[in-house]
Amino acid sequence: MTAADRLATEGFGITHLPYGSFSASAAGPKLGVRLGGHVIGVAALLRHAGAAPGDIEATDGPNLDRLLTCDRAVWDRVRAGIVRALTEPSFAESVVAEAVPISEATLHLPFTVADYVDFYGNEFHASNVGKIFRPGQPALTPNWKHLPIGYHGRAGTIVPSGTEIPRPKGLRPEPEGPPTFGPSRRLDIEAEMGFVLGSPVPRGEVALADADGHIFGLVLTNDWSARDIQAFEYVPLGPFLGKSFATSTAVWVTPLAALERARTAPPAREPAPAAYLDDSTTPAWAFDIRIDVVLNGEVVSTAPYDTTYWTAAQMLAHMTVNGAGLRAGDFFASGTISGPERNQRGSFLEMSWGGTEPLSLADGTEISFLRDGDEVTLRARAVAPDGSTLALGECTGRVLPAR
Amino acid sequence: MTAADRLATEGFGITHLPYGSFSASAAGPKLGVRLGGHVIGVAALLRHAGAAPGDIEATDGPNLDRLLTCDRAVWDRVRAGIVRALTEPSFAESVVAEAVPISEATLHLPFTVADYVDFYGNEFHASNVGKIFRPGQPALTPNWKHLPIGYHGRAGTIVPSGTEIPRPKGLRPEPEGPPTFGPSRRLDIEAEMGFVLGSPVPRGEVALADADGHIFGLVLTNDWSARDIQAFEYVPLGPFLGKSFATSTAVWVTPLAALERARTAPPAREPAPAAYLDDSTTPAWAFDIRIDVVLNGEVVSTAPYDTTYWTAAQMLAHMTVNGAGLRAGDFFASGTISGPERNQRGSFLEMSWGGTEPLSLADGTEISFLRDGDEVTLRARAVAPDGSTLALGECTGRVLPAR
Repeated sequence: MTAADRLATEGFGITHLPYGSFSASAAGPKLGVRLGGHVIGVAALLRHAGAAPGDIEATDGPNLDRLLTCDRAVWDRVRAGIVRALTEPSFAESVVAEAVPISEATLHLPFTVADYVDFYGNEFHASNVGKIFRPGQPALTPNWKHLPIGYHGRAGTIVPSGTEIPRPKGLRPEPEGPPTFGPSRRLDIEAEMGFVLGSPVPRGEVALADADGHIFGLVLTNDWSARDIQAFEYVPLGPFLGKSFATSTAVWVTPLAALERARTAPPAREPAPAAYLDDSTTPAWAFDIRIDVVLNGEVVSTAPYDTTYWTAAQMLAHMTVNGAGLRAGDFFASGTISGPERNQRGSFLEMSWGGTEPLSLADGTEISFLRDGDEVTLRARAVAPDGSTLALGECTGRVLPAR
Repeated sequence: MTAADRLATEGFGITHLPYGSFSASAAGPKLGVRLGGHVIGVAALLRHAGAAPGDIEATDGPNLDRLLTCDRAVWDRVRAGIVRALTEPSFAESVVAEAVPISEATLHLPFTVADYVDFYGNEFHASNVGKIFRPGQPALTPNWKHLPIGYHGRAGTIVPSGTEIPRPKGLRPEPEGPPTFGPSRRLDIEAEMGFVLGSPVPRGEVALADADGHIFGLVLTNDWSARDIQAFEYVPLGPFLGKSFATSTAVWVTPLAALERARTAPPAREPAPAAYLDDSTTPAWAFDIRIDVVLNGEVVSTAPYDTTYWTAAQMLAHMTVNGAGLRAGDFFASGTISGPERNQRGSFLEMSWGGTEPLSLADGTEISFLRDGDEVTLRARAVAPDGSTLALGECTGRVLPAR
């Protein structure tokens, strides 16, 4: 019997193996890999597997940072070494002895975020927001189908799943007169898929066809949003304080290799995008991933990631086409994911249609935006054509009253 | 005779002492301080001065990073120790022996940039841009006088003065039909004052009155801008690729302490801002700093920083009022600095009024936006009430053809 046989559970079996940064007892943070309900140090696994010293070194740090400076060939060898260590019966005893129950570990951000970009790549979401904020005008701005619109977010306020989120304060628009300062009255979430980048490109471009050499893995992301603060501040330079107070990510990064079976075709594009965004001859970069938005334990929406118009490969090609290049630890998110139905929307702004159509909850209350004490969890599964699923690491956070 | 007597020159005398990161011969980067045309390792100076081990340790790295994790008391002690080392006659011989001519040193970015925010705090600039881009509408958006508008920029593409700037490519709007992809046709500069932050505040607020505990120093900044790419992309989420290809900063950070004599009152504010932005009872946070925009050796404009409506202290209070906090190495810039006159504008967009009124240069040519091969240098002096001046480290870059 192998370590995998003894430890794996659904969604976190031997075909998944997401990475995280964990501390157990007095030991400082280490890069670990999740198998079932346990986390195991990656460097120790590679030593069992007889990996090359350079590969062990790349994993022998507090988190993914060192591995992200390496290229796809190293990422693939490391994953193969982990699988070898977990599936070779003769290693089972010592590997199982090293496994730490996740309930006994502290989980940290899995990597140090370099630059963070938040995109706006889902057509249903962008159309909903356009209709809510600019009624009577075209739902999409004229540029929307020509490029994946995005903006830089605050890297320093990305926090791991489980971190509590104090309600932010700021200037809120009023129906009459000047804005007033106080706690946000329209605190919201955005259910997004995040992408962790590596294999640096100093001051250069990443062609769409090379995306798999740089997208290390995926991580569920909640882009907390204060809609009132955002509405007052965002013209003409975009969202700032309405977003920068916090962004939560899951503590488990699912490597791209684990999601191959969930790849699917992206939506049809009309008009055809510019050549650098043309993905008609590259591998499909959409994924059949379904994200549950769970409010205090109740599923209020299930957002289908594969409806997103712009893929991660297009986003990466776009954000570097001006020569910006990328650093290990750069991170971008898809933008809010929504499907065509009301119960597929990835924000309360959309679910409550700007507060005009509150949601009825199972307990009989109604909600438009988040209340102090509300807990939101994003929970996702990647689905293969045969229906088999892989559960991603969840992303959760509870709203605290304003400080 | 002291080391200061022997080495200092105007603008870089004993009252200035800006910090930089330098390499000389085979030695790796070190934190240095500039005196005249020389740079001297800070840790070595503090050892001469008999500084406390902790203070020496804070300066004994490749750049400002360690010192920025400390607080104002350490910053002040380190500066006092440097002055002591440079003005004590008995140290002169050994200090002069350690001084490296700047012409023999390689200068690097003086600190590792954490998050980068670019503001839009100058009323003349914002009004000019409004009139150029939205003729017939109010020049300022309704929020402009209520808060310092800002957005996050790309930290990973901040480059030291002297770095060449390839012309970026991107989607450019066309008078008729869809956008086309190619090199920017409207490459521009923005003359700005940058502010380096330290003394971290994890997930909290920085009150305006506490700004001097966190603003370590000032550095000239050129926010290169591709106006055509920016114009097509920026609605509704703000500038992205039109800015993210490069931002240049001077290699010398002028500590706040060196600029006390240039402090002056900011412009009058009407309407009065919210309480957290009210600076009526705090020290004046404007500075009489005049920035020459030098194109291929010719001064085409002199932008007066003291015309800027929102101060650095207000910007810092604003960007943290939602609880975002700050990290050592966070960096923000004032936004383009322009005065009321044509020859006081800090961008070619404004100087050429959107390309409709090209500038006549001394060589008889006309220019609206930057041409391949153009070199732009920002050169600034802080002016004290008695007319004495202090020259800031310059910020220069040359435009290369698109790759």
